[in-house]
Amino acid sequence: MSETIPAPDGATRLFLILGDPIAQVKAPGGISRAFAARGVHAMMLPLHIAAADLRACVAGLSRARNLDGLVVTVPHKIAMAGHCATLSPRARLLGSVNLLRRNPDGSWHGDMSDGEGMLAAIRAAGGSPRGQRALLVGAGGAGSAIGLALVDAGLAALAIHDAETARRDRLVALLGGRGAAVGAGGPDPRGYDLVINATPAGMRPGDPLPIAAEGLAPGTFVADVITMPEETPLLAVARARGCPTATGVDMFKAQQALIADFLLGA
Amino acid sequence: MSETIPAPDGATRLFLILGDPIAQVKAPGGISRAFAARGVHAMMLPLHIAAADLRACVAGLSRARNLDGLVVTVPHKIAMAGHCATLSPRARLLGSVNLLRRNPDGSWHGDMSDGEGMLAAIRAAGGSPRGQRALLVGAGGAGSAIGLALVDAGLAALAIHDAETARRDRLVALLGGRGAAVGAGGPDPRGYDLVINATPAGMRPGDPLPIAAEGLAPGTFVADVITMPEETPLLAVARARGCPTATGVDMFKAQQALIADFLLGA
Repeated sequence: MSETIPAPDGATRLFLILGDPIAQVKAPGGISRAFAARGVHAMMLPLHIAAADLRACVAGLSRARNLDGLVVTVPHKIAMAGHCATLSPRARLLGSVNLLRRNPDGSWHGDMSDGEGMLAAIRAAGGSPRGQRALLVGAGGAGSAIGLALVDAGLAALAIHDAETARRDRLVALLGGRGAAVGAGGPDPRGYDLVINATPAGMRPGDPLPIAAEGLAPGTFVADVITMPEETPLLAVARARGCPTATGVDMFKAQQALIADFLLGA
Repeated sequence: MSETIPAPDGATRLFLILGDPIAQVKAPGGISRAFAARGVHAMMLPLHIAAADLRACVAGLSRARNLDGLVVTVPHKIAMAGHCATLSPRARLLGSVNLLRRNPDGSWHGDMSDGEGMLAAIRAAGGSPRGQRALLVGAGGAGSAIGLALVDAGLAALAIHDAETARRDRLVALLGGRGAAVGAGGPDPRGYDLVINATPAGMRPGDPLPIAAEGLAPGTFVADVITMPEETPLLAVARARGCPTATGVDMFKAQQALIADFLLGA
């Protein structure tokens, strides 16, 4: 992250990433460098804002005339959907946003690109969800977005595993009727072409594996949303068994171009 | 302004300069580079905000936990004094601020460094106001701050020239009783050691000179607040006559270190 970029000046267009905590986010460096590489005179900076302060902060910030876009991370993705005058179809369906840009009247248009980011990471690693059977572990914000993107990319079947059965069942219902066979699943990865962890399991030393990894076959593609550590225990087991993998960092990198495209209205 | 700086990351502390218009300001590059040179993990970005939106914008922005300071430019210097819980003595006297940093409780502490910037530029060019006789042209925000700084630096006498006689007289009254002989002056520079233009005259081609420049003696120090053009017609005449000079860009550069010091609580 020591790469340099041109210093800002008075004409720099401003983009902010909102979150709490904020120090761990990678968008300021990644997106600022992406802007510079595209010759766009803009920069992405972090804004540390607590949930209780979000509404007033966004109301005030939105009045700035050189603030062209926002990236949203935990815990603001659902609340920020309420600050959008318009939403992409997927953001409306999921009820959450991670990206906002201005409409011509200055109001905010929101989108949710987390699923698309995972899809791009899987494809970049040679995977393809079309016609495949996938096991998704975790039906929270990230899992919901990933499940939607995979189903809409032509998955044959999606099994969702989550210890919170109520939100698992809500996501099963939400993703049904879109072309894939969607149902509740368990921790056993046998019989799936694609296994995705969208839970925090693997962030802390000693976390249990999110699936029963001894069932992983060498051809199964294994992906994880966790960025730190980059190689989670799940991915280490998968790689040892010869599985192709995509990491949370791969997902972030794949998403960077999508984020820059959206924020710049491309 | 093509010099590069390290890209921001999630832990970057944020500083903003508020103004309308904003594209001309030099603080984003200058202060961001000053932070980088000092090893401070922070960046200064422009925020374009109209006067009508200032109150709500600052109220919202102030809730951000990594926003550590603000620089204020036209037209917000007086209004922003009202957002400060505490003011430096000179900011309180002048009723305006160009710099804000956080108090320990998160509220804002304001200062006005424009006069100190001009003083530093004059000194860097070999001038010294102590015991001298100065002619100040322009009794607006910048002129008031410069007049105060010069008087407090030990000037013997200050003459103030402004076509708006009411604000000239207010500034004469404000700066009286601080050790220098302060009174109303005219456009004739004869008899002064130091002549300072703090009006916009010289920004546009064809502007009249702010003083009767044919009266400039070779030893008179001539300073100008205008940054664009850097060599104003007044400074061109002064240099042709052999006068030592300080430009608006010199003033900005001299002020950069003062601004960084203040914002970082040094």
